[in-house]
Amino acid sequence: MGGQVPSVAEAIASDPDDARARIRAGEHTGPTSGLAAGFAQANLVILPADDAMDFMRFCLRNPKPCPLLEVTDTGSPRPTALSRDADLRTDVPRYRVFEDGSMIDEPTDVTRYWRDDLVSFLLGCSFTFEWALAAAGLPLAHQLQGVNVPMYVTNRRCAGAGAFEGSLVVSMRPFAPADVGSAVDISSRFPAMHGGPVHIGDPADLGICDLDAPDFGDPVNITNDAVPVFWACGVTPQAVVIEAKPSLAIFHAPGHMFITDRPHAEFDSEEKRHDRP
Amino acid sequence: MGGQVPSVAEAIASDPDDARARIRAGEHTGPTSGLAAGFAQANLVILPADDAMDFMRFCLRNPKPCPLLEVTDTGSPRPTALSRDADLRTDVPRYRVFEDGSMIDEPTDVTRYWRDDLVSFLLGCSFTFEWALAAAGLPLAHQLQGVNVPMYVTNRRCAGAGAFEGSLVVSMRPFAPADVGSAVDISSRFPAMHGGPVHIGDPADLGICDLDAPDFGDPVNITNDAVPVFWACGVTPQAVVIEAKPSLAIFHAPGHMFITDRPHAEFDSEEKRHDRP
Repeated sequence: MGGQVPSVAEAIASDPDDARARIRAGEHTGPTSGLAAGFAQANLVILPADDAMDFMRFCLRNPKPCPLLEVTDTGSPRPTALSRDADLRTDVPRYRVFEDGSMIDEPTDVTRYWRDDLVSFLLGCSFTFEWALAAAGLPLAHQLQGVNVPMYVTNRRCAGAGAFEGSLVVSMRPFAPADVGSAVDISSRFPAMHGGPVHIGDPADLGICDLDAPDFGDPVNITNDAVPVFWACGVTPQAVVIEAKPSLAIFHAPGHMFITDRPHAEFDSEEKRHDRP
Repeated sequence: MGGQVPSVAEAIASDPDDARARIRAGEHTGPTSGLAAGFAQANLVILPADDAMDFMRFCLRNPKPCPLLEVTDTGSPRPTALSRDADLRTDVPRYRVFEDGSMIDEPTDVTRYWRDDLVSFLLGCSFTFEWALAAAGLPLAHQLQGVNVPMYVTNRRCAGAGAFEGSLVVSMRPFAPADVGSAVDISSRFPAMHGGPVHIGDPADLGICDLDAPDFGDPVNITNDAVPVFWACGVTPQAVVIEAKPSLAIFHAPGHMFITDRPHAEFDSEEKRHDRP
């Protein structure tokens, strides 16, 4: 999330391999914002195989909050499509481990929880479209104000799949009216990273009573004429999985993402058009 | 596939509900090309739950040949995201049923093969981008020549998942050099319907020795200056599943697709940008 000023050591780790090596070695246990700048990061959900099929359906039915980047082989901690040599047991700076819907641990390594029946899901992260918005000169209020992006539970229900059902969670970024169109166009180019906004304008339409009281993250100051723009958020699958109370569920800790080897630009649908498959 | 001139009765069935009702009643058992014009059609793969997780992974890892439109709940024949009232046991004009990799039946109804552990996969179909190409005035050789589109097994391997692995199968449509750019741009707007081409030009690059000898479909006459353009093809998942020899697999018969309630235009990523999720 925003507001993390990378240290010199962190800024040096601009290579995904270096960043993951430092994380694996326990040298970096903080948020990943600013690490390996230019490379996509991902949300992580790990579930037993018995729950994986329905969770995969949930993601397919709700691609805006849950854009699937990769699903690993059962038992394998290797997300080979996103990184040649990463290990999902060790390469996230901090995890959250849930049993039956209750958090039991926040370790920096989940090797001791690993089982042969676990399936890992890597989901797109808003850092990529934020990178594109910033590159286009659009100011991101939460970054300028040095806080985490504000997130809200909405009145919109996701399409359910088995035990997985719940409300859509959104993140909010305010923009000057003249910038809203660009924010829509640019973020829409990254469908694998939540894509375009799900709502623009009146928070009440999403059942949000008070923008100053986000359910997750921090409030941001909004200038009088700014328009709130809402994107589907990767917190949605975490909330839905916790609610379903599987016997075991492992997530990245908020803001402590998995760093991939794939540049942000690779997820730009405008750039991908003439690619080979 | 192309080349089917719809009868008056068929042309009247321009509504997906009507078309599916006629198919369900056994009044239409032929190919679906030309039925419910304007609405997307889909490839169908039905597998036991034990094989479904790996096949879903296969699709996610090979989105060009296997763009997932919907995965049903286990045991449910209702593809609710694509149609409000369809039944996958009866609403495809002709099926192919395989046991252990061998075809055992080509029925017009698979109710007697249905089991509570079956999972149905609906995959995007090239009819949608062909509709968009035709709407843009680009001539489709196989349609003009009244034959099925030619399809070829290539030397490119798909990314495997469990027992599912094999070669990419492509369809080929020739275009005048001046039209190739438009064909790329237009088809790329439909990522859920195989998207942009996987190769343009020399067939030898894909290991195709003779364009006049397709592995599936029919050869088309190609004018001297025309450029062959190759798209990932929905035959790929059929070939890969048959090779994996699951205990049971059910497909639509070639060209006998599932007709959805969703207009082609809904799958245009250019049009979808400002949609709600």
